[in-house]
Amino acid sequence: MLAEIIAVGSEMLTPHRQDTNSLYLTAGLNDLGVTVAFKTIVGDNRAHLTAAIRIALQRVDVVVLSGGLGPTEDDLTRECTAEALGLTLQQDPLVLESLRQRFAARNIAMPPNNARQADVLSGAELLPNPNGSAPGQYLDLDIALPSGKKVRKIVLLLPGPPKELKPLFDSEAKPRLARALPPRHLARRVLRMALIPESTVDARTAPIYSKFSDVQTTILAGSGEIQLHFLCTKPTLAAAQARVDELVQLVQLEMGDDIFSANDQSLAEVVLSLLDIGGHTLSVAESCTGGLLAERITAVPNSSRVFAGGLVTYSNASKSALAGVPSALLEEDGAVSPTVARLLAEGARSRLNTTLALAITGIAGPSTPSGPDAAKPVGLVYIALATAEGTGVREVKINGDRDRVRLWAAMHALELLRHHLL
Amino acid sequence: MLAEIIAVGSEMLTPHRQDTNSLYLTAGLNDLGVTVAFKTIVGDNRAHLTAAIRIALQRVDVVVLSGGLGPTEDDLTRECTAEALGLTLQQDPLVLESLRQRFAARNIAMPPNNARQADVLSGAELLPNPNGSAPGQYLDLDIALPSGKKVRKIVLLLPGPPKELKPLFDSEAKPRLARALPPRHLARRVLRMALIPESTVDARTAPIYSKFSDVQTTILAGSGEIQLHFLCTKPTLAAAQARVDELVQLVQLEMGDDIFSANDQSLAEVVLSLLDIGGHTLSVAESCTGGLLAERITAVPNSSRVFAGGLVTYSNASKSALAGVPSALLEEDGAVSPTVARLLAEGARSRLNTTLALAITGIAGPSTPSGPDAAKPVGLVYIALATAEGTGVREVKINGDRDRVRLWAAMHALELLRHHLL
Repeated sequence: MLAEIIAVGSEMLTPHRQDTNSLYLTAGLNDLGVTVAFKTIVGDNRAHLTAAIRIALQRVDVVVLSGGLGPTEDDLTRECTAEALGLTLQQDPLVLESLRQRFAARNIAMPPNNARQADVLSGAELLPNPNGSAPGQYLDLDIALPSGKKVRKIVLLLPGPPKELKPLFDSEAKPRLARALPPRHLARRVLRMALIPESTVDARTAPIYSKFSDVQTTILAGSGEIQLHFLCTKPTLAAAQARVDELVQLVQLEMGDDIFSANDQSLAEVVLSLLDIGGHTLSVAESCTGGLLAERITAVPNSSRVFAGGLVTYSNASKSALAGVPSALLEEDGAVSPTVARLLAEGARSRLNTTLALAITGIAGPSTPSGPDAAKPVGLVYIALATAEGTGVREVKINGDRDRVRLWAAMHALELLRHHLL
Repeated sequence: MLAEIIAVGSEMLTPHRQDTNSLYLTAGLNDLGVTVAFKTIVGDNRAHLTAAIRIALQRVDVVVLSGGLGPTEDDLTRECTAEALGLTLQQDPLVLESLRQRFAARNIAMPPNNARQADVLSGAELLPNPNGSAPGQYLDLDIALPSGKKVRKIVLLLPGPPKELKPLFDSEAKPRLARALPPRHLARRVLRMALIPESTVDARTAPIYSKFSDVQTTILAGSGEIQLHFLCTKPTLAAAQARVDELVQLVQLEMGDDIFSANDQSLAEVVLSLLDIGGHTLSVAESCTGGLLAERITAVPNSSRVFAGGLVTYSNASKSALAGVPSALLEEDGAVSPTVARLLAEGARSRLNTTLALAITGIAGPSTPSGPDAAKPVGLVYIALATAEGTGVREVKINGDRDRVRLWAAMHALELLRHHLL
């Protein structure tokens, strides 16, 4: 069963705005066994939109339109769908009344244009939208092909704002689609790894996953991470889950500890759980990452259970004042060295009174450092982990621009800690 | 002149991957006076892709295809374009030879499939691709409509990886398009504001920009920021620039200091410049933002000129240990209060020996705080600025989830500092 998603709105044809709803809609449609074959983005233009809907009706079974349901003259999705399907629009008195009440509640007279939002395609079911003024619409109908043959089409009209579209799709559209389409049962799992080249992951796992032709495997790379997505459909959920779990187990055997999560948790979440289980507390000291590591950790709710705080030791003076790194050492050897990394970690651990501490110092670029660091290349980073038993330091070399060096340095620090905790 | 961008690749029809090239291509086409009227995303499917190209040729003047130029059986853009246009493909001996040399340099025999990348549409110009193996192709041709009338079409085949597509589009495709299309001169300016509702900016500026019907104005909102983009085309660049500058000046008069940048700088960049000009140095102390403010500041290259460092005082103990906040005060009044904000800022200023210091303490959510902070609502944030003359504290209430509260709190701190420096 094929679908097309049509995102309606001229702002998505500028260099500044992108359709993002379609990713969410695609996941939901895939759950139901529907494959998205085309995505079209079209502006608020009557002729363009009507033609795009006609084309979609010819080439797919399910047409999902997002946007263009608002009250303005530019909101044309209802009219153009009616025109493309040869249907009429009828004003729904209940929708009209609820629109009036929305305005009355704010003591404003309803501008006449708003009544357009009560126009309903003949034969459509209304999908209530608790988060906005325009309801969605659901049409399940037979249309005649030029040959005279009748074919079934499902057409879905959804509001454009993601905060309206997502709950409405989940609570109203998805159940209707599930009833209309043949039943299916789907299982999925995600394995996440950090700091490994995509090609390495593929080379090691392809011999395994390629034997599971009934499981769809996708490798995604980005932000220092590799994700393996597995998806399987079977007549029963138990059969689908068993097959995905079987594949996951074999891949886990191959990749071992390189896999940081089999439950779709972020690296920071996994590390925080391990710290919590081990009864540890953590502090950090950061030079080149400048707060990024602490930010990633504190982005996780309840990180305060184990994370005490951090030192952002950006200047050399701050490395001395906050972490007690001797200034003579910084003047002589520079700020990027295994010794400075070790002293920063030990300084954070003692000042913040934690069982463990991570430190990062490195050259993020793009500008060339001066003084004793001048000879050190952009991307050279030292990471230290201080524990009650002593401090370990790792040297890493990271390719790429300033943003990448900073992000990967933080990931390396979290990975160092995770391997220590395992 | 209308264009359609067709992004080719089944991975962009999954929930995981999005076409991003089209934003870059749209900016470049707009520069040349070409409006993007449709974007289509289609999988690696011969029938679907050929049909999509035929549809595009019917509805626009310029068709830009990205992706599907690689060596595999799934790479169908060349074949499908040839079929849609009724053209043949000819193997180019020079391209074939350079492909062979790429493999020879790596001591690998070229797999036979790779020769597909040397197939050139009859009449196409080859666009050399120094960053990949498949060259782009540029076609400027007349095609016959069903009516028999001939119309001119430009068809552009570009490689999919952004690192190949962007330089190739800029250096090879854009100059050819500029020569093929009527000349035009374009000026643009961007004004950036923080923490103001989009509707307020629009209400105050629409009476001004709506009088400049020859300047295209776009309002963009996101990440705590509002951007006003102005774009104007005239027979000469000077005339276009003068018109945009005239409008910018009037909007600047209306919005005053609310505008933090008229040169497309980020808020952190602007604040760092102002600090540098004023001979200031800065430190920070962060509770609920957990390093985010320091991270935003140190994301700017050369921020080390004025930024000394920061204290991430996440636990109450760390507020005492690092910034000297009395623990009795924290136990009695909690960590979220004007006094704690003031003491954090003053602690950072004195420990890091800077002329200015910012501090943030607040309730980021989603979990309810315990102890004396339990009665305080999620989104309540105190921001303090410590100076040689004393310390000011501001209370703000931020709506939204944890990520939004943290981001807006950091923006509020930077805005407080900017207004102080002005």
